[in-house]
Amino acid sequence: MKLGKQSIKFENTPKLLNTSSIVGPKEMQGPLAMYFEAHTDDIFFGEKSFEKAESKLMKTCINNLLSKVPTDNSNIDYIFAGDLLNQCISSGYCIRDLNIPFFGLYGACSTFCESLMLASLFVDAGYATKTVAATSSHFCSAERQFRMPLEHGNQMSSTAQCTVTGSGAAIVVPKDISIQSPYITCITPGKIVDMGITDIANMGAAMAPAAFNTIATHLTDTSRRADYYDAIITGDLGTLGSEVLVDLFKKEGVDISSNHYDCGAMIYDIEKQDVKCGGSGCGCMASVFSSYFFEQLKTKKMNKVLIVATGALMSPLACQQGETIPSIAHAVAIENEV
Amino acid sequence: MKLGKQSIKFENTPKLLNTSSIVGPKEMQGPLAMYFEAHTDDIFFGEKSFEKAESKLMKTCINNLLSKVPTDNSNIDYIFAGDLLNQCISSGYCIRDLNIPFFGLYGACSTFCESLMLASLFVDAGYATKTVAATSSHFCSAERQFRMPLEHGNQMSSTAQCTVTGSGAAIVVPKDISIQSPYITCITPGKIVDMGITDIANMGAAMAPAAFNTIATHLTDTSRRADYYDAIITGDLGTLGSEVLVDLFKKEGVDISSNHYDCGAMIYDIEKQDVKCGGSGCGCMASVFSSYFFEQLKTKKMNKVLIVATGALMSPLACQQGETIPSIAHAVAIENEV
Repeated sequence: MKLGKQSIKFENTPKLLNTSSIVGPKEMQGPLAMYFEAHTDDIFFGEKSFEKAESKLMKTCINNLLSKVPTDNSNIDYIFAGDLLNQCISSGYCIRDLNIPFFGLYGACSTFCESLMLASLFVDAGYATKTVAATSSHFCSAERQFRMPLEHGNQMSSTAQCTVTGSGAAIVVPKDISIQSPYITCITPGKIVDMGITDIANMGAAMAPAAFNTIATHLTDTSRRADYYDAIITGDLGTLGSEVLVDLFKKEGVDISSNHYDCGAMIYDIEKQDVKCGGSGCGCMASVFSSYFFEQLKTKKMNKVLIVATGALMSPLACQQGETIPSIAHAVAIENEV
Repeated sequence: MKLGKQSIKFENTPKLLNTSSIVGPKEMQGPLAMYFEAHTDDIFFGEKSFEKAESKLMKTCINNLLSKVPTDNSNIDYIFAGDLLNQCISSGYCIRDLNIPFFGLYGACSTFCESLMLASLFVDAGYATKTVAATSSHFCSAERQFRMPLEHGNQMSSTAQCTVTGSGAAIVVPKDISIQSPYITCITPGKIVDMGITDIANMGAAMAPAAFNTIATHLTDTSRRADYYDAIITGDLGTLGSEVLVDLFKKEGVDISSNHYDCGAMIYDIEKQDVKCGGSGCGCMASVFSSYFFEQLKTKKMNKVLIVATGALMSPLACQQGETIPSIAHAVAIENEV
């Protein structure tokens, strides 16, 4: 049912049955390496192009996920997926081979939460009994599409973030399945927020106000305090964007510094790896949530988390035409008890 | 509830309360001119770029829609929208200014049905009481992104279609609203179908098998015959793709030639306007359904229609890398009686 201004409370609390993650070589040099389920040391993943490699990352991730649950593809009712590539070809070519009805999504880096929101909602409403949410990104395909081809050898700005090579996927089922797993209890789909930032090498700052807007709305809608959650996990604000978010809450008299985590700030060793403000991309939250945070939930080290994927909805062309960066954030509450 | 293999029957049958349409100058020279609610004679629509013009088409269309129903933006629970531009910037920049929670979609030219499916589903499940679905496309922004800049002056292939400059939007509400309007009764989200076609100047033929797959599945899932519907309306197969679709059904012993309509084949005067096989683009079905067919339903000249938007999910880059064209079609059943 609708809850407050823009949230939805799931009365049938679907279960997040399982997740899967896969990353590239750079992510395996970071501090979360032990949590990722799969990885490739080859940035081409055996393919002839970065785009095909990205699509294969997603397909491998989904196939690994489905191999862990007692099902075959014909039992997956619907799949919700998206990525950063023009016309979302990573998802399109991946899902072509899976024979599952498909909803294609574009929410930039917010897409992991967008897909998980819809996957959960179809199960909660009784339209489906098994749904999959998946997203991917790839450093090299993103660089040449959004910025410059790698061959150009350009330097990264100090506020830039490094697109994660990776994918994450999750399967959602009704709560009556007897396997112990966390519940998806509530979602808050976001509105677009645009504070006028034009620097595409400073996405964290552009997206932080959208994260603030969605989290604040979620807390109001659910009558919860920020410390209700063991972790409020943003997607890829990076170190700078995370500071902006914490500051925005501080101005409202709310301190989230002790329970705020950002997947982009966590996935790399910021000091040792040359990643400036950290990671970004659809694959960032997808791979970090689907590995480290899902493990924290399963082992009950964390019991209540709010995941908030943030996306910057501009295109290179829009920025060349002088546009600012519209951003959006979607929130999903995941809890061990209901 | 889930119906058959991949359809969903709406037990609360949401109402399609109203629609709005807007088109460009070429569409106003076609046979449906009298049905479109709004139009512009200026291909730039007063903006400085084709992309900004496209975004303004969608925004004008949504604002026109909302002006016709007793509501303001704050009462719209969620909006579902997408377009063909890289990173879906037509939708992103349009919806930035509307202050409505937003689900960004990418299904190429299938997006109008994808957005209408989700808008209906949120109302049917009780998560929302007012949702909007919208899509747009623009000939000039599509040409330079998918094919060649117009300045190049290249000739169109005889199997090509002409991207429609236009937008369409629809508002969905619960059935208990006392205004007489058609119901959305059932949806069939599609699977990706790829028959190996590589010619991006022959999209109709690439998409026809996806339309066939979804329509055939819909008829099986609902135990309906093709002649149950007054009209089976595809999005933009064009004249050639429509022939392929009719032939595919003929092979199965089903004749849809008398109740099949294609928005792409209808929007232009194929004989007199230089459009080869007709219209295409997210704005094609959006503008034609939201004008001509909605009028047929309201005046009860048609009482049962199945709209089937078809999308080709390739990108120029994927085709340059030797990929074939994966296609998808989503179906929505709209009926005056339930």
